[in-house]
Amino acid sequence: MFNKRVKVKDLLASEPTGQEVTVMGWVRTFRNNQFIALNDGSTNNNLQIVVELGMLDENTLKRITTGASLKVTGKAVPSLGKGQKMDINATSLEILGDSDAEKFPLQPKKHSLEFLREIAHLRFRTNTFGSVFRVRHALAFAVHKFFNEKGFVYMHTPIVTASDAEGAGEMFRVTTLPFDNPPRNEDGTINFKEDFFGRSTNLTVSGQLEGELAATAFSEIYTFGPTFRAENSNTARHLAEFWMIEPEMAFCDIEDNQNLAEEFIKYLIRHVMEHNREDLEFLSQRLAEEEKQLPQDKRSEMGLIEKLEFVINNDFERITYTEAIDILLQSPAYKKKKFQYEVKWGIDMQSEHERYLVEKHFKKPVIVTGYPKEIKAFYMRQNDDGKTVAAMDILAPGIGEIVGGSQREERLDKLTERMKEMHIPAEELWWYLDTRRYGTVPHAGFGLGFERMVLFVTGMTNIRDVIAFPRTPKNAEF
Amino acid sequence: MFNKRVKVKDLLASEPTGQEVTVMGWVRTFRNNQFIALNDGSTNNNLQIVVELGMLDENTLKRITTGASLKVTGKAVPSLGKGQKMDINATSLEILGDSDAEKFPLQPKKHSLEFLREIAHLRFRTNTFGSVFRVRHALAFAVHKFFNEKGFVYMHTPIVTASDAEGAGEMFRVTTLPFDNPPRNEDGTINFKEDFFGRSTNLTVSGQLEGELAATAFSEIYTFGPTFRAENSNTARHLAEFWMIEPEMAFCDIEDNQNLAEEFIKYLIRHVMEHNREDLEFLSQRLAEEEKQLPQDKRSEMGLIEKLEFVINNDFERITYTEAIDILLQSPAYKKKKFQYEVKWGIDMQSEHERYLVEKHFKKPVIVTGYPKEIKAFYMRQNDDGKTVAAMDILAPGIGEIVGGSQREERLDKLTERMKEMHIPAEELWWYLDTRRYGTVPHAGFGLGFERMVLFVTGMTNIRDVIAFPRTPKNAEF
Repeated sequence: MFNKRVKVKDLLASEPTGQEVTVMGWVRTFRNNQFIALNDGSTNNNLQIVVELGMLDENTLKRITTGASLKVTGKAVPSLGKGQKMDINATSLEILGDSDAEKFPLQPKKHSLEFLREIAHLRFRTNTFGSVFRVRHALAFAVHKFFNEKGFVYMHTPIVTASDAEGAGEMFRVTTLPFDNPPRNEDGTINFKEDFFGRSTNLTVSGQLEGELAATAFSEIYTFGPTFRAENSNTARHLAEFWMIEPEMAFCDIEDNQNLAEEFIKYLIRHVMEHNREDLEFLSQRLAEEEKQLPQDKRSEMGLIEKLEFVINNDFERITYTEAIDILLQSPAYKKKKFQYEVKWGIDMQSEHERYLVEKHFKKPVIVTGYPKEIKAFYMRQNDDGKTVAAMDILAPGIGEIVGGSQREERLDKLTERMKEMHIPAEELWWYLDTRRYGTVPHAGFGLGFERMVLFVTGMTNIRDVIAFPRTPKNAEF
Repeated sequence: MFNKRVKVKDLLASEPTGQEVTVMGWVRTFRNNQFIALNDGSTNNNLQIVVELGMLDENTLKRITTGASLKVTGKAVPSLGKGQKMDINATSLEILGDSDAEKFPLQPKKHSLEFLREIAHLRFRTNTFGSVFRVRHALAFAVHKFFNEKGFVYMHTPIVTASDAEGAGEMFRVTTLPFDNPPRNEDGTINFKEDFFGRSTNLTVSGQLEGELAATAFSEIYTFGPTFRAENSNTARHLAEFWMIEPEMAFCDIEDNQNLAEEFIKYLIRHVMEHNREDLEFLSQRLAEEEKQLPQDKRSEMGLIEKLEFVINNDFERITYTEAIDILLQSPAYKKKKFQYEVKWGIDMQSEHERYLVEKHFKKPVIVTGYPKEIKAFYMRQNDDGKTVAAMDILAPGIGEIVGGSQREERLDKLTERMKEMHIPAEELWWYLDTRRYGTVPHAGFGLGFERMVLFVTGMTNIRDVIAFPRTPKNAEF
């Protein structure tokens, strides 16, 4: 039975009064054959273990290497060293697992993020990834807490699906058919009736359509699950597998939708500020040091924590797409021809445009509404102008689009008309259309890309560093 | 802006003092052109709306049909009717969406669960599925709450993976290669280097192996995500896509593991008992009525709530596999040759055996430990007897296996030896073995099948009725 151990975080929160404790963890450093910095993953603050000279034999001392795991019993006493609250004066020490100092890839020095990605199975044992994943945990918990408090019902929408919510995304096929001699129809096409699900299936790109089904019964629901894109995008912002949160609300319009999204994002940040202060301070410092290597004008104007405080204490800017285009057309950047892509009403704004709006012009999160219907999905509610839909995107500094949402088209005639125009097969979505046939209601929802939110809160810059085992083109290691 | 509405559940929890309120929801029934039972999914308790005679024109009255959606403003007053606390005396009523009474599949009468499975997109609007999915939500939230309180870190382990945790499960392929003329190697085999991830990939059967990587850094982690089995099992207990919770703990042995699993299950039940009393009472009554149609000896000895109370108030039985086999061999059922499958030491117990143990012999949840190593996975810790491993299964009445877990083999030599015996390719799992090379620690974990837990708590009997859109052989509708 191991459950007598105390976690380092809990121990450090208590007063050292000479009490006997048992701790377990991994060695970060061992100095002077006397001072062990022990970490158990509960915090970045290592616990200092003091080994009295002569207590351990030569051989045991040699085995206390970086990465080795220990069980230590001792007395918790106020530390004589600076910067730490307590020491453990060891009375017994057992090596649970050795770590060959020559081979262990994590040395007590700074490793590049690129190198750590190669050893994603061990990078959790660094301060950076310790903090990132504890913050990720806190954000995930806050998601559930937020919606639970509001009475939303958590729905697990299907991962394997025969439908394509966006009518666009590139998808992964899910199959049990063999590549060699797959069953074929008379006309030579593949006979998917023989596939596991009796039809052609793929990994979901969004749980929204199914979420709408549940929202038109429970009023307010949310999903939080993995979604997939088979896009060959090798960028610092894209993953083939990522987690998404999609609330969907009946009796809700585009304005309520914006209010909820803003409240939600602020709630998440506030939760982490309250519960992960230490981790944020570490990440803030890490970012500041990273940025020292950048030229002055590429550095952030605010530190990480300062930025998060700014976001929770200020209203998000709310503008229409038309206003956004006007701002871009009036901008010095446009006039000096600094944009690579064209700017005019009707374009799908590029990253450079979004960054200009949030980072240069408004310097805070911006909610853009009322996009041209041509660049948005079939299910978005058509505005009376005949040109725009009740869509909304939230753009965040340094991240770009973090939320995409809309009021949904609840009018059956408008919806089916738009589907016809966009060649979306109505017969495959009979169940979706049923919600508009039987007691249709105004409703709205949005999707928050979870990894982008983690990026925003941790100040990390590559999305592969905020998910445990990233899935990207040509990479499914671990 | 719709956010001025009040949810029915919140309204019913308040006192009716003549205050003006706005409610929105769907019509369940409409009696005497006067009494509307309105439901918004927040509770099974409909809100009674009273429409004064003459307030609405003939045409509007006709449109208040089952399934139609309404916005009602009125005064909350104490109800004159029995069984309900308050009425809303409508002052204005707007029909948001019509529902053709002739076509709407949900009539105010009892529908079979089989029929409702065909219209899974609408079944949320029934009392049974309202309760089931609110309980499912509460259980999911309790999962996160439990682990968050204990300082476990929530990990999102990969869904698309190149590894097979069990070394056994039948898996779904994930691919972007075409069936027609897929790229081939010189020897004619498929060239998966050309596939999206540069190798052959499938949907995960478990996040355990990746969970172990994180546990050997954070000490204690859990996963909660979808897992997949491409098994052609068309039973009431199997799904091709289901959700699983997998905690993994460093510094933990098989006894700690049992303690945690028992505490966890009891915590989940207690949470639902506290937060979803109404839903449990409805489900309990539903089950009692279902069982009335069964012969006396097939009925449960306890009602649903009684059963749940019994489970939280009593210790789980703990026996070894060897003891379990002895009990079976000594049983009247065995002596009367009532078991279909053979009973002897070494068998993988069948459902009939497990049911005998939990339902007839112990009449409560049973934790069985120390299974023969031949029937268990490679990563389970080998006991000193050379025959058994430190595995544990938790068997629940009416459900069978609800938890499967083990202490993991932390000794590199024992682990690699066992992998060789079982033909598990060590080179593909280099990262898994690294955790045993660098500071290996005793550790353990388990998996809880979430849908089986929902079955247990709701008293439902078919697993397709506790997940929103079940994925089973030949079925991926919605």
